Amino acid sequence: MIVFYSEEHRLQSGRSELNDGQLVPCYEKPARADIVRNRLDAIGFGSVRAPEPHGLTPLERVHDVGYLAFLQNAWGEWVQEHGDWDALPLNWVAPGMHRRVVPRSIDGRLGYYSFDAGTPITAGTWRAATSAADSALSGADRIRAGDRSAFALCRPPGHHAGKAFYGGYCFLNNAAIAAQSLRDGGAARVAVLDVDYHHGNGTQEILWERGDALFVSLHADPVDEFPYFSGHADETGAGAGEGANLNLPLPWGTDWAAYAETLDVAARRIRAFAPDVLVVSLGADTYGGDPISRFRLLSEDFLRMGAAIAGIGLPTLFVMEGGYAVDDLGVNVANVLTGFEDS
Amino acid sequence: MIVFYSEEHRLQSGRSELNDGQLVPCYEKPARADIVRNRLDAIGFGSVRAPEPHGLTPLERVHDVGYLAFLQNAWGEWVQEHGDWDALPLNWVAPGMHRRVVPRSIDGRLGYYSFDAGTPITAGTWRAATSAADSALSGADRIRAGDRSAFALCRPPGHHAGKAFYGGYCFLNNAAIAAQSLRDGGAARVAVLDVDYHHGNGTQEILWERGDALFVSLHADPVDEFPYFSGHADETGAGAGEGANLNLPLPWGTDWAAYAETLDVAARRIRAFAPDVLVVSLGADTYGGDPISRFRLLSEDFLRMGAAIAGIGLPTLFVMEGGYAVDDLGVNVANVLTGFEDS
Repeated sequence: MIVFYSEEHRLQSGRSELNDGQLVPCYEKPARADIVRNRLDAIGFGSVRAPEPHGLTPLERVHDVGYLAFLQNAWGEWVQEHGDWDALPLNWVAPGMHRRVVPRSIDGRLGYYSFDAGTPITAGTWRAATSAADSALSGADRIRAGDRSAFALCRPPGHHAGKAFYGGYCFLNNAAIAAQSLRDGGAARVAVLDVDYHHGNGTQEILWERGDALFVSLHADPVDEFPYFSGHADETGAGAGEGANLNLPLPWGTDWAAYAETLDVAARRIRAFAPDVLVVSLGADTYGGDPISRFRLLSEDFLRMGAAIAGIGLPTLFVMEGGYAVDDLGVNVANVLTGFEDS
Repeated sequence: MIVFYSEEHRLQSGRSELNDGQLVPCYEKPARADIVRNRLDAIGFGSVRAPEPHGLTPLERVHDVGYLAFLQNAWGEWVQEHGDWDALPLNWVAPGMHRRVVPRSIDGRLGYYSFDAGTPITAGTWRAATSAADSALSGADRIRAGDRSAFALCRPPGHHAGKAFYGGYCFLNNAAIAAQSLRDGGAARVAVLDVDYHHGNGTQEILWERGDALFVSLHADPVDEFPYFSGHADETGAGAGEGANLNLPLPWGTDWAAYAETLDVAARRIRAFAPDVLVVSLGADTYGGDPISRFRLLSEDFLRMGAAIAGIGLPTLFVMEGGYAVDDLGVNVANVLTGFEDS
């Protein structure tokens, strides 16, 4: 399996995020990608390559152009206003408010285009985020060229980013960008399977009215977990996409036995959709040791997860999402990939 | 003029708010009310009284009961989950998300019921906020009893709080609660004039579809200023309230000359509405020395503001809102009140 990885991920290195009422060091940090890369090297897995630059066009197929311009320029505007410190928004759109008018103030635009205070924009955010999207797009290119699988070691992650918003450590929706690229490259139908612990609200929002793209997500029940306001079972899509969105929320404490049963439900739904290709939003924060999550998967369970995904029987692009138990993240992610390859 | 003031305002003493990407000491702090109180004492203004408790019923006339229960219990739940530290939310409702389901998690409910990360819930928030509402209600009682005017020295402020959300240092909408109390007490029509530097998005949201309550606000243009997503001139109300909402956004740098002209527009609109009573959301953050605002009113201009409000010729309840230049806040607020009384 070819692995795409860009050193530019290191350019996104936020200092702090708002969590539990305090500014704490960012959980989403460069060491996350490094440890996965190192583990793949250590076990001699696949071939690691730098992604090809793909430019703005494939990003514009998924994201709002005004949003992309904002992301590209936000840091420069922020520094001019506030100085060299992570850019965090301060308020958001309440009931009775609206997004009809894009604010002129950088603080206003940070709130306009975001949904949390945990996703700092830094000097390197744009370059890191576009390098991650390039990894996803390069992976999609391999699938299109006939590979059975590829792994885009994306950082920052993407599945919380919507058409015109960032949050949850995500700026560009790497999985959706790759899925769109596969559609544009000839796949009639694509499926996105999201196994990150958190609901992929951005991917859902992007694909909500799409009948050509199935979104299936296993995640912690949003009544208990971030992002709280998305990921319920009754969210099934709209318009042409009605029925092409399947949320499978699971309770705190979910272990592999319960997870595997639900993953089987997901696999059956994907096979029934009969897509040409599968994109997997691969978060490993379902791990029992994750510092901000409450499922109980063990490292060896990730081997089984990879095998189960292989059992779906589709060309598969893995796109890295979350996972914050840094010491074990390399093993867990590598286990999914080797579990897939060995099946 | 009778002044209502509760010592319980001191129970809301947040440690930090998210501002400019950092957690900074709260601008909305007990010293704000103390200095106003002290100035009124120093000049021998009016008679300062503790408010009468009014209970939950008048709050429920304006706010959602689920929201009130949340506010009352949030601190206890937060401390159990996170310990003794200011409660701040971490994420909010993005496009494609929804408020259909109230989260079970306290973090989720903080985001569900709020719109910024600058309004900490503390051990004393509920008692301080209800004491402020009691001051506003006690002031309304005086107006109903025939007084020409009253001043509710409310802290925390209220005009950013909506039916079911807090933010902008506000939890209960003291002005809207007082206006409703006046309606319930027999006034056929009420007007709320908001002269705080920031748009009173909460009051607007509460009164949006009300034809019996006019909302008129002078404030910094939301393209430049908090709350950013509310306060544009084309927001005019809906349903029975269509036309009963007048926003008068003003640019940074506005001085008294420009402000006075706009205040005259507001006064004419209020007179045309022919209300029985006027509630003034009195923020003094239009002052040139305010640390987080950019208008240029001088201390003596607040005398003129009070006189202009008196010129509207209505029984008038002043309700304290913002103003963060603590050293001068007492003089500026007292100037509005004496400017009114001396007219």
